[in-house]
This record gives sequence, C-alpha cells and structure tokens, in this order.
Amino acid sequence: MIQCDIGLIGLAVMGENLALNMESKGLSVAVYNRTASKTDAFLATRGAGKRIAGFKDIASFAAALSTPRKAFIMVKAGQAVDETIEALLGALEKGDVIIDGGNSNYRDTIRRTAYVESKGLHFIGTGVSGGEEGALKGPSLMPGGTAVAWPLVKGVLQKIAARVPGEGPCCEWVGENGAGHFVKMVHNGIEYGDMQLICEAYQIMKDLLALSHREMGDVFGAWNKGKLDSYLIEITRNIMGVADADGAPLVEKILDAAGQKGTGAWTGIAALDAGVPLTLIGEAVFARCLSAAKEERVRASKHFTAPQKTPPADKKAFIADLEDALYAAKLISYAQGFLLMREAAAGHAWKLNYGGIALMWRGGCIIRSAFLGKIKDAFVKNPRLENLLLDPYFAQALEDGQGALRRVVAAAALNGIPVPALASALSYFDGCRSERLPANLLQAQRDYFGAHTYERTDKPRGEFFHSDWTS
Amino acid sequence: MIQCDIGLIGLAVMGENLALNMESKGLSVAVYNRTASKTDAFLATRGAGKRIAGFKDIASFAAALSTPRKAFIMVKAGQAVDETIEALLGALEKGDVIIDGGNSNYRDTIRRTAYVESKGLHFIGTGVSGGEEGALKGPSLMPGGTAVAWPLVKGVLQKIAARVPGEGPCCEWVGENGAGHFVKMVHNGIEYGDMQLICEAYQIMKDLLALSHREMGDVFGAWNKGKLDSYLIEITRNIMGVADADGAPLVEKILDAAGQKGTGAWTGIAALDAGVPLTLIGEAVFARCLSAAKEERVRASKHFTAPQKTPPADKKAFIADLEDALYAAKLISYAQGFLLMREAAAGHAWKLNYGGIALMWRGGCIIRSAFLGKIKDAFVKNPRLENLLLDPYFAQALEDGQGALRRVVAAAALNGIPVPALASALSYFDGCRSERLPANLLQAQRDYFGAHTYERTDKPRGEFFHSDWTS
Repeated sequence: MIQCDIGLIGLAVMGENLALNMESKGLSVAVYNRTASKTDAFLATRGAGKRIAGFKDIASFAAALSTPRKAFIMVKAGQAVDETIEALLGALEKGDVIIDGGNSNYRDTIRRTAYVESKGLHFIGTGVSGGEEGALKGPSLMPGGTAVAWPLVKGVLQKIAARVPGEGPCCEWVGENGAGHFVKMVHNGIEYGDMQLICEAYQIMKDLLALSHREMGDVFGAWNKGKLDSYLIEITRNIMGVADADGAPLVEKILDAAGQKGTGAWTGIAALDAGVPLTLIGEAVFARCLSAAKEERVRASKHFTAPQKTPPADKKAFIADLEDALYAAKLISYAQGFLLMREAAAGHAWKLNYGGIALMWRGGCIIRSAFLGKIKDAFVKNPRLENLLLDPYFAQALEDGQGALRRVVAAAALNGIPVPALASALSYFDGCRSERLPANLLQAQRDYFGAHTYERTDKPRGEFFHSDWTS
Repeated sequence: MIQCDIGLIGLAVMGENLALNMESKGLSVAVYNRTASKTDAFLATRGAGKRIAGFKDIASFAAALSTPRKAFIMVKAGQAVDETIEALLGALEKGDVIIDGGNSNYRDTIRRTAYVESKGLHFIGTGVSGGEEGALKGPSLMPGGTAVAWPLVKGVLQKIAARVPGEGPCCEWVGENGAGHFVKMVHNGIEYGDMQLICEAYQIMKDLLALSHREMGDVFGAWNKGKLDSYLIEITRNIMGVADADGAPLVEKILDAAGQKGTGAWTGIAALDAGVPLTLIGEAVFARCLSAAKEERVRASKHFTAPQKTPPADKKAFIADLEDALYAAKLISYAQGFLLMREAAAGHAWKLNYGGIALMWRGGCIIRSAFLGKIKDAFVKNPRLENLLLDPYFAQALEDGQGALRRVVAAAALNGIPVPALASALSYFDGCRSERLPANLLQAQRDYFGAHTYERTDKPRGEFFHSDWTS
C-alpha cells in the first residue's frame, strides 16, 4: 500500500503544476480528478515516471494518504469546492486536513472552516498566487483557517512555496478561518492597481510622448533596474519587444477590453463594507469595466473632440516624473490595501503579521517586487505602524515624488489621457495630508436637510449639535 | 367603528411627518408605535385635533383600516421591518397591502416581496426622499414591489408626494419587487456625489481663490440661478450666510468628519457586483470615509509639505470654469447612475422608466434640480437612450465644459486641493470617449503570466488567442 505525503484534487493546469511542484520537492503525491480520463492523461504525460499516484475514487485516494491526511483541493471556486469538501468528509477521518487552494471568497472560507471543524477535521484556506509558472516552480502561499492545523501542513506548504534568497519561504501563517483568502483577495486587488498604473504610464508614453515600442521597452527596462523593480514591469518590458507575424508590435493587435474574474471587485466590496477608502483599486476595477464596453466607447468617441495635445517640452524629464509618479501612486495603493487588512483584522479578530504578508508577496506571485522588501522592513521596524505612508522611508519617497505625481496628473488632465488610478492616488494623498477637508460643509448640509447633527471643532468629539439653518 | 384610509407604523420624526402629510391631504390615518407612549405623545401634540387615530396593538390598528388595508411601515431598516411585517401578517388579510417606506436594502425588499406575496398579501417597498421637510410637505416617492398592488396605493401615494408644477406628482410605479428601493439607493448614491462635488468647489474657492464666505455665498447664489439650479446649491448658499454666536461663519466651526448611513456604500457595491463603472459615487463614498479619519489625517499632515499655491490669475474666469466643471461632473455622475440602473434592470428583469425616474427626483427630494428636467426630456425624446452623455443636449454641454473640467482638475492637482470626484469624472469622460484604452497591455500581461488569452482587433469578438511571450 502506497502512503503518499499529500493528496491533490483537481487536475486543471494549476493543479497539475502544483502536483509536479510537490513531487519535485521530494513529496509523494496522490492525485484525483472527477473526470478520471484527466488523471490518466496526466499520469501518461507530465506526471509519468514520478512519485505521483492516480486514483479513480475519493475513498482509495484518501486511503493512500499518510496520517494526518492532507488533501489539497484545486478546483473552481464556488460550489465545486463545497461538493469536494462533502466528498472528502465521507472519506477522511478526524484530525485530517482539507486545504482549499482555489480563489475562494473569504466569506466562504470562514463558513467552511467552521463547518469542517464541526466535523472534527481541520480546514485550511490558502491563497495561491503566481499563475501557472508559480504553481510549478514555487508560488506565494497565504494560508489561514484552523490554527492548530498549521504545524501539520507548514512543512509541506513552505517546501513548495517560492523562496526569497536570504529571506526564506513566501508562505507563513496568516490567521484564523478566512484570513488567508482575505489576504489573497487584497493581493489580487493590489495586482489590479499595479496593472492599471502601468497601463496609464504606457498610454501616456504612447499617446502623449509618442514613444515607439522599442523606446517604451527601454523605459520599462530602465525602471526595472530602479525602485520600480518588479515582475509586472519586467514582463511589460518584454511585451513591448514582442512582434506579431507582420513585424508590428503584438500588443497593438490585442483588443483593449479587459476581463476580470471578480476578486478585484470583491476587494472593493470589502472596502465599502469596512468603510476603508480603497480608491485606487476601486478605480482600477472600474477601469476594467469601462474597457470592456468597447463598442459603447467607439460610439461615444464620435461625440466629443479630443483636446489639442501639448507634449511636455522635456520628454526625458517627464519620463523621470512618470517613474516617480508611478512609485508614489503604487505606494499609496499598497498603503490603502494594508489599511483594509488592518480594518478587516480588527473586525474578524485576526492577528495579522503585516511584515510577514509583505514577505509572502515578495516572491512567487504576480506583484512580487523589490518594493515589498521595503514594506516588510517598515513593519519589522514598527509592527504597529498605523499607515505605510507614515513610515520614514516611504514618507520621504512620497514627499520627493508628490511634485512629479502632480505634474503627471495635470498633464494627463489637460491632454485628455485618462488616468483614473494616478489621479485617485493624488486625490487620496492630498486628502490624507489635509488636516482640514471640506466635510464640514457636508455635515452642515446633512444637518440642514436631515437634522443629522454635527460635531464642532471647539467641542469634544461625541458631543452633537443641531442648528436651525433657515431661521 | 372608525375606518381609516391608511395606517402608519413607526412614529419617529419621519413617520410623524408622513402621517401629518397624509392627513393634510384629506386622508384619515391610523397610527401605531411599538412604544405606546410615543403614540400618546404624538396625539397630544402635533397630531392633536386631526383625523388621526392612535392604537396600542396591531390587531385594533388593522381593524380600523378600510379594505383593502394599506399599512405604511416607517421603522428602522433591517430586523425591525421584518418583525413589523410578521406582526402585520397576523393582523391583516389576503389582498391587503404592506408598504415599507424605510431605507431598506433592495435585496431585502426582493426577499420580502416574495415572502408577503406567498402569504397572499401585497408588498410595496418604496423609496422616500426629502428628509423631514419632504415627509411633511411632499416627498419624492419611488414605489416598487407587487405590481398588481400599484392601483390600490397609487391614489394615496401620489396624493402625498411632491408635485412639480406642470409635470405632476413625484411618484410613479418603478417596477417589480426591489426596483423602488434600488432606485432610491441610486438616488442616495447620486446625492453623495452631488454633495462631494459641491464640497470640492467650496474647498477650491476657499483655499485656492481665498474667497470669503460672503463671496462664496454670492457664487453659490449666482449658480443657483443658472444651470446648477438645485436644492443642494441653494442650501449651500444659505449655509455660507449663517454665523455662529461670535459672528464667524458657523460652517467653519463644524468638524470635518462626515458620517454615512450606508446607502452610498450599497450603491458602490451594487456597481461592483454589476461591473458598472460608478467611479464618481465610489470616490464620494470613500471621501466620506477618509474625512471620518480626522485624527489620522491630522497626524499625516505633519509629514508632508503642501505645495506652493498659485491661484489662477483671473479669478472670475476660474469661477466660471468651476461652474462648468461642476455641471460636467454632475452630468457624468448621473450618467453613471443611470447606467447602473439600466444594468440592474436587465439583471432583475425590471422595466424601468428612466424619464419617470428623473421626474420622481425632479421635486421633493434632496437632489431635486432643474437639471433633472433635462434628463427627463432626454429620456422622453429617446426612451432607449444608451447613455445620458450621448443625448444631444448633454453631449453639447460636455463638449463645451470639458475644457473647464480639465483646467480645474489640473489646477487642483498642482495646488494640492483634493478633488476625488472631479478628477474621477474627468478620467471617466476621457475613458468613455477613448476608442482605444490601454487595456490591450493589460490583456497582454494577463496572457503572459496566466495564459488568460486575448481577443484581437483584426479578428471577430469571441475568438481567443494565446501567445508564448517568452520564446
């Protein structure tokens, strides 16, 4: 009887790659797929000649696992996860661990943790980031769920995770029940923001500065050697250099209608629920929605005159501004994301380790970057840091970069380049650093029409006043 | 035995005022409040000497209503509504109508409509807007729910609603189940946007143009005679003229920390769920959240240098720009709101009458304005209008106003005035009128790291391609 170290359910590309990753790290792996022919095909091809055993039913799959059994589910988020859990509950025993590595909504993970625990088993919901390549070579893993199960799965998960040289594995315990999937959701929202920011920089360079794709590739390449050093900047540089069959840049042949799988929208909804101003990610999600309305945009474009474009006199200086603006906006986006995690942690009684989260994202995943090392440093220096913007290193970076961000947003506004993410970063920054915002007028209006009452600057908080504004 | 035309449950200020409104329009009203002393107090004061009868239990309240009975609930949104419905179901008969006039979430109204209908009664969920004064003198009413019940309540509801001279009552059937509360929710979101826009204009005039409150009052007064003619501009003009005990403007004594009751956030969530870019309202909701973080802002303000302010040379011209910018941004916000309603209508199979909705908002409610008359006209002219921005009148207004909006956003960016709503309006407009957005790069990135595939500009929609970007 084989005794496998871990079991994996769901042999789509991500599942296959995770199984191969596990096996390459010295683990023996049991695999199961609802459609058995998929299992056969995997074992006959990429899984052949490896310590990977296939099973046609859940019971024999479970019987092949060494105890406490660890079953890693990699199926489509939603009902399929619930069905797989139900099947596993009939085959596993008390003390075994079910791990969900899909893009599950953290609310489902909260519910499933309670449910599986009520049956005497353990549940781990883990974020898995890094796409297909990450799954194969080492993803970023963000596990949460049943806390006592962490020591049971830590060895396996840290073994298959990405590693940052000198820093260790990109996998650490996140927190109880849905904390892992919540952090993964915020990661995805941040990914939306990072991508939108790069798109805005690209459009400015292409449409305002009239750079060629070769020149843009050079700019992204140079940025990737500096403070913007990151996977997304690196692949953008590479994309600029890829030609279509006719020799023209392939990227220009691609339809400008972006898809979304919903996790960006979930992040926005979580922020609205928690009352945390997550403006940049919100704008990035909405920018994808607007891009998808391609036909409507084409029709609308006929109704309006584009403003006369006035490119900046000094292109080189403007490109330097763009780099600083991008960095400042990115920092603001991450600060907003960490504030959302802080608020959610308070609401769900999660004890999140923010430096640990930055390290988990430092390698393996789509948003991996040198920048995340700086975030980790900021939280290691001050684990109670209220807001990333106030860390001395980042505060200085923002202070140095705000002028560039202002110039870029103003130039985009005047020249008709849409910059929803850059502009919302600037508005948020100016709001954050405003001791006084115009919400006093808003409170006056609410008191005027709805007797909502207001607080006064010269009285203690919690004391409420109402005025008869019309007499 | 008295037979009252209508019953009202819940005697907080809004409920009291609605009862008085009903009575003043010739209706006899039965009232009930869970705490009976509240009923006694009302009948001894504002309700005295009127055709208003008080009851101490639901059964006698119900027995006093003429059939089919109409019970209007005005209690706190949430569980209290469900409890009241449950109590009414025990006292009413088949064919009677339960009306919920609270700020209920439209999802609850969908659920309650089905539930009450399953018991053989009718349910109406109606938006009520206009604050205390509207409730007393004539609110805007947005009823939805059981369609066959509309003829039963139409007379009463249109009698108590606001009227626009020459246009009729601000109350028309909205649609099935939750449609009325959905439209009310969007109304509230639009109210958030309108208020935020006015706040941004006020901050620009105060902090960049250094206008006095008297001067600002004059500007708002002048705007209220032009295309921005609206209740919110009118009360803002009045607020500028109100002095505190020491003679200084009262508005400056008010703490700049805005509250919210959640309906703005609901609107943002509905937009994220539906994939509709509702950027301006989203930013307005988040701006309230940021304003509420007063202490954090005060701390953050110490870390950053405000940019040197350079007020525009020609203040008068800039104020004219500000008026045009506000109008353009407001138009964009309403266009986004109507797109959200259109998408929701498709999803919920509601047949919304957009011109009718504009008319309902034309009077009685907080966002009432001359502008809504123009929106009504646009939908009367073209009931299938895809997007308000494309109506010839509004397209021309935007074409004329885009330069002003650009100049205002650029000046705010350079001078450090946060304008989240104005800036997001401009980004959205520039996105809308862009035949080509940079989402092609985003799709290239997604295909690069996740094999998400893309469509091509030179191939039909629905045909998907994947490239190996690294070879």
